[in-house]
Amino acid sequence: MNIDGIAWRSIWLEEGDSSICVIDQTKLPYQFTTKSLRTCKEVAEAITSMVVRGAPLIGVTSAYGVMLAMKKDPSDHSLDLAINQLIATRPTAINLRWAVERVKKKVRSVEIQQRASAAMEEAKLIEKEDVAMCEQIGLNGLSVFHQLLKRRNRNQSNKPLNVLTHCNAGWLATVDWGTALAPIYKAHREGLDIHVWVDETRPRNQGSRLTAYELGCEGIPHTLIVDNAGGYLMQNQLVDAVIVGADRVSSSGDVCNKIGTYLKAVAAKVNNIPFYVALPSSTIDWSTSNGFHGIPIEKRAQDEVTQIEGKLINTTERFEISRVNLSPTSTVAFNPAFDITPAKLITSLITDKGVLPCTKDGMNALLPSN
Amino acid sequence: MNIDGIAWRSIWLEEGDSSICVIDQTKLPYQFTTKSLRTCKEVAEAITSMVVRGAPLIGVTSAYGVMLAMKKDPSDHSLDLAINQLIATRPTAINLRWAVERVKKKVRSVEIQQRASAAMEEAKLIEKEDVAMCEQIGLNGLSVFHQLLKRRNRNQSNKPLNVLTHCNAGWLATVDWGTALAPIYKAHREGLDIHVWVDETRPRNQGSRLTAYELGCEGIPHTLIVDNAGGYLMQNQLVDAVIVGADRVSSSGDVCNKIGTYLKAVAAKVNNIPFYVALPSSTIDWSTSNGFHGIPIEKRAQDEVTQIEGKLINTTERFEISRVNLSPTSTVAFNPAFDITPAKLITSLITDKGVLPCTKDGMNALLPSN
Repeated sequence: MNIDGIAWRSIWLEEGDSSICVIDQTKLPYQFTTKSLRTCKEVAEAITSMVVRGAPLIGVTSAYGVMLAMKKDPSDHSLDLAINQLIATRPTAINLRWAVERVKKKVRSVEIQQRASAAMEEAKLIEKEDVAMCEQIGLNGLSVFHQLLKRRNRNQSNKPLNVLTHCNAGWLATVDWGTALAPIYKAHREGLDIHVWVDETRPRNQGSRLTAYELGCEGIPHTLIVDNAGGYLMQNQLVDAVIVGADRVSSSGDVCNKIGTYLKAVAAKVNNIPFYVALPSSTIDWSTSNGFHGIPIEKRAQDEVTQIEGKLINTTERFEISRVNLSPTSTVAFNPAFDITPAKLITSLITDKGVLPCTKDGMNALLPSN
Repeated sequence: MNIDGIAWRSIWLEEGDSSICVIDQTKLPYQFTTKSLRTCKEVAEAITSMVVRGAPLIGVTSAYGVMLAMKKDPSDHSLDLAINQLIATRPTAINLRWAVERVKKKVRSVEIQQRASAAMEEAKLIEKEDVAMCEQIGLNGLSVFHQLLKRRNRNQSNKPLNVLTHCNAGWLATVDWGTALAPIYKAHREGLDIHVWVDETRPRNQGSRLTAYELGCEGIPHTLIVDNAGGYLMQNQLVDAVIVGADRVSSSGDVCNKIGTYLKAVAAKVNNIPFYVALPSSTIDWSTSNGFHGIPIEKRAQDEVTQIEGKLINTTERFEISRVNLSPTSTVAFNPAFDITPAKLITSLITDKGVLPCTKDGMNALLPSN
């Protein structure tokens, strides 16, 4: 998608195929910089430190991580080491495990000498598929928006379609297009009058830092709100639909996504507002039947809660990012990074394979064999 | 309540009765300073800039504001001017209007020469009553906690009573004791094993800045969370009860409180967790029968959302408070400061007049004539 009128992707193979390059998302929106990753260790560190984040993107990045490990040492030992190193970075998003297992399977099937190139081909394929899946999610979500507009009564017809989103499930969370934001990009490019409520998404503020940045770059009308404000907006008929991404979905359709998603889903249900989850099929964990029992919820550092990072106001330094403390220094915090939204609260899953009910039948339609 | 082992109140009349003094809450928890307010204008400014905040406290402070106006000029014109100036400061909390109207009525009933002293006596009475009401709320809330503990099953008996609170409804929001925190203080002093989940409460972070500070000073176990985390805690049986304050309650029991309260109330309902609102009877607006139609919701500046204030990490200055930007500079924000929680989501009202159901009967028991 566009930054200053130039089309970017969030990850690309660099010349010579011996490194990958990513946009450093820890610096956005204050500073736009890219970062070369030359080894599997550097890839793992980029995922841990959230230079790259977003379930689909960490899947693609980790696939390239296996490639970089195979370039250095294509042995079984090196392969296992790389896989373990990558899987250990972040526990919740399933795309990561899915992507490295897929590359591993491919690599295992060829001779030692072919492993590096086999890993590269598979990583490139995963990247390409991610773009195609996200674009298809965009088109499928666009049809949902058209249905919502059709159902409107006359006195709503001159208002924009108001969509609320949580966290960042935009193109920066994938390779291109995004998941939850893909339908919004498609809608805007088609000329639909759309407006996005952007949850800031504490503690890491991916909403105010990344979603607001993405939407601004594409010229899409949006308004930032604190995470507390969504209920007020829903009660006041200011939200037509909620759309979020997913970090892992159980085979029963329970959705693990950024902390706070569940609160919005409950409020949407009570206020009769449709709640959509946009996801590529790689986000589904077929081995977990109940979202409340099988999905590990990452607990992150407490200073993400007690402190926050931003650009100093009135500083002479153009890009100076500073941290401030938000509480007494002795305050202890708890920081679960995700929560589970039960399937029953979800109106539909917007996937690359279609718009499906979040039921057993809907999930069956997403099975890899289909 | 205690700060460094010394008992404080949030407001007091200074020697000579010609000014009042308050704790400057915009500097907490980084810096503890007090501020003298010498005129009605200074009082109005202190309320607008949130040097003092919290529905009961701005009621008491504004009562003293009328006194200061009467000391300067006890004319009818001066009285009307003072009342209008004070009421214009913040639109949502009803205690403010209630307090100044009460002082006005008193002042009107006496001769010009007696007006200043009549205003002072009434303001002192309001202050005294506020402390008594809050302490009684504490005792009544304590009985609720005892009931919750009685109902527990055996495997919960060695766990602390986990109470979640939103915003700051502690002693800093009143004169002493607080509303939502009063039962917690009473419980802790009685030796009850209690632990508080503190919502940071964006955008102004009264939770991380004031509630965490208050509880820390009193030695009460507490853990700070982002506003997004409450749903996760409720789903995981880590919350025994939610308790919040109120800025205005309709005669039907709809509760207007800090933005985000509603999201917690909905999640509590769905998870069968009792949701309590603690309030002095001065918070009830008998002229408003429906919380969704008669209560003006204050919309505050958008930079409260796009920016945040805190103490710079690694600074050599002991008290340096800085502001950082959290979003692209062009980002627009919307900042409603309160939301409405419908009566049906509230388990009980914890008031100075008892613990009452949030129904017509319960509200009737709170009528001023009773």
